[in-house]
Amino acid sequence: MPPPPTAALSSSSSLCLFPFSSYSSPKKTQLGFCPSFPFTRLTNVTPTRRLMTCSAVSIEKETLISHRPHSFLRETDGLDDGSVRSRFQRMIMEVQDSVCGALEAVDGAGKFKEDAWTRPGGGGGISRVLQDGDVFEKAGVNISVVYGVMPPEAYRAAKANVTDQKPGPVPFFAAGISSVLHPKNPFAPTLHFNYRYFETDAPKDAPGAPRQWWFGGGTDLTPSYIFEEDVKHFHSIQKKACDNFDPSFYPRFKKWCDDYFYIKHRDERRGLGGIFFDDLNDNDQEMLLSFATECANSVVPAYVPIVEKRKNTPFTESHKAWQQLRRGRYIEFNLVYDRGTTFGLKTGGRIESILVSLPLTARWEYDHKPEEGSEEWKLLDACMNPKEWI
Amino acid sequence: MPPPPTAALSSSSSLCLFPFSSYSSPKKTQLGFCPSFPFTRLTNVTPTRRLMTCSAVSIEKETLISHRPHSFLRETDGLDDGSVRSRFQRMIMEVQDSVCGALEAVDGAGKFKEDAWTRPGGGGGISRVLQDGDVFEKAGVNISVVYGVMPPEAYRAAKANVTDQKPGPVPFFAAGISSVLHPKNPFAPTLHFNYRYFETDAPKDAPGAPRQWWFGGGTDLTPSYIFEEDVKHFHSIQKKACDNFDPSFYPRFKKWCDDYFYIKHRDERRGLGGIFFDDLNDNDQEMLLSFATECANSVVPAYVPIVEKRKNTPFTESHKAWQQLRRGRYIEFNLVYDRGTTFGLKTGGRIESILVSLPLTARWEYDHKPEEGSEEWKLLDACMNPKEWI
Repeated sequence: MPPPPTAALSSSSSLCLFPFSSYSSPKKTQLGFCPSFPFTRLTNVTPTRRLMTCSAVSIEKETLISHRPHSFLRETDGLDDGSVRSRFQRMIMEVQDSVCGALEAVDGAGKFKEDAWTRPGGGGGISRVLQDGDVFEKAGVNISVVYGVMPPEAYRAAKANVTDQKPGPVPFFAAGISSVLHPKNPFAPTLHFNYRYFETDAPKDAPGAPRQWWFGGGTDLTPSYIFEEDVKHFHSIQKKACDNFDPSFYPRFKKWCDDYFYIKHRDERRGLGGIFFDDLNDNDQEMLLSFATECANSVVPAYVPIVEKRKNTPFTESHKAWQQLRRGRYIEFNLVYDRGTTFGLKTGGRIESILVSLPLTARWEYDHKPEEGSEEWKLLDACMNPKEWI
Repeated sequence: MPPPPTAALSSSSSLCLFPFSSYSSPKKTQLGFCPSFPFTRLTNVTPTRRLMTCSAVSIEKETLISHRPHSFLRETDGLDDGSVRSRFQRMIMEVQDSVCGALEAVDGAGKFKEDAWTRPGGGGGISRVLQDGDVFEKAGVNISVVYGVMPPEAYRAAKANVTDQKPGPVPFFAAGISSVLHPKNPFAPTLHFNYRYFETDAPKDAPGAPRQWWFGGGTDLTPSYIFEEDVKHFHSIQKKACDNFDPSFYPRFKKWCDDYFYIKHRDERRGLGGIFFDDLNDNDQEMLLSFATECANSVVPAYVPIVEKRKNTPFTESHKAWQQLRRGRYIEFNLVYDRGTTFGLKTGGRIESILVSLPLTARWEYDHKPEEGSEEWKLLDACMNPKEWI
């Protein structure tokens, strides 16, 4: 077995749901925050072990640009139009367009506002936000592309047992789309999705250690009230996307989702789940690119019909107050547990893009307990005891 | 010089602003969160060096009780009525009564709801919350008393250079009052205060290492709009309390406050500051007990006149929306940076008591920028560039 390739991040995306910073498998060892090591992460991945440490992380400040470019890839990358990084970038740009188009159609009134930026060292991003529409309180659909280099000193620290080898920086590439959609109507659920691709060069100082790549992502639903047909519909589409590739994917990624979106201090999941995966590299790369594409393309058919059905359902102030309390839980998860958010905040990502995931408004009541058997209680119960929906 | 006393926490308060978990001096080295070490803290304090590590933290679940007891001290402690722990407990109970009384008088309609609890190993707490009053949106005034033992394995880990000494557990005691007051009117400021006392036994395995004790705390003001006379009044009362004891206290603790309540990802302070100190043990213990008492007793004269003056000021929807955005910042600070909150959430404290610090409602708008020169801009400017108010 070759020596474990190791890497340390020197840069991060401005998106909260960034490829290598946002998620990790619940089965993996995690190292948390340290003052001089804002984000230290130890992953133990089959078949190779990946160790990533982040030393003296500093992110290049983004430059807002007036027109979105055709590509954020470096010129050398851009020439190779058949590369996975190039095709993944094209895919997330197309998905951003199609999702935003579908959401504007559902909303009827709200329009997405676009901010595009680049970074001096390569890469960039496009944030699209629709705020205070007729249907959506706040909807953000962001893409980003990052080029970074793992710093030698962190690389050396991560490779204590191969100190006689001269350490060198390892360049990496990452791209992702991430989105959070908060409708106004308390019967229309919040949706989150995120798909991302990550690649490193082969480390120069560890002969035999391969170039690394992996996919990550997921789509999950967070309603305030349960309409069983909606949740079944949503999960069915996720299962269908998974089953097209591997029958083990849906059960595995459904559980991973329940495990990841866990508000530990409440012993509650954030919502009713969906699918979630990370560090996926033990299948054929072309197959996984197709799988990620299929998942991203499933967002509109999985979500839009539910919002169409619920966007005009009459509701009371009490329904709205409950939705606002659940929004509070969403914020608790994102600010306390979501690794992409906490990493992004602590390392200087584009704050407005990171925090666009937060709802427009939220509420915290002291010691609120829904009445047993009520609709609110049923939602809470399903968040505490994840169910098989299909 | 004796060998540095070291300690590791095995338990925590249910309050978010708990003595040894909530704060630390900006000048000190901090170790953040790790998965198996939910709270690791390295403090380097003059004149003795204190190293605290928290290994496998687990907090005994609290038991709600129907009547608040006269004392949460263990019987053996309770008999010594002149001890600092006993007098500090009496002080925080009296302050809880006087502050709640004054707030109910200001509110006119809202009443505090009380929850009291004990823990099997000793200690307990009283949460008092006034929600949705005429003047206060949410006001929490909590006290707690904690007995804990520092686990031998963490103690050993912290004392790598004295490994030939047999390590043993070190009992500790901590007590504190903490409070966050959120008025409804956007011209009436939010207030936070917290005063706490901490004691350890002398470590049995480090001959010559003394029993440790220290005080911590502070009072700070978070308005959405600046009324200079209000801020001057507030800071003057803090300065007066400080100057009664040491002329260096106010400038030192004012700066410490500005440094601690810092939302790094925004490059903004949470509010307009006040005073803040921690690990205070380099003065006479009786003097510091009197100082903490004076500070706690200054809360009502520093804050109540301001709320009285602003509670009925007419306001528009736009004033309210700005207040809600500032509430969002408050939440960002508490959930992302406040060490007591993050520690409490991750180690199983009483969630409702920890999160009572969050406002009832809050708001996040994408890329909101107040117009230069506006009242909102002035507040933001003062949060980004702390001022000398007196």
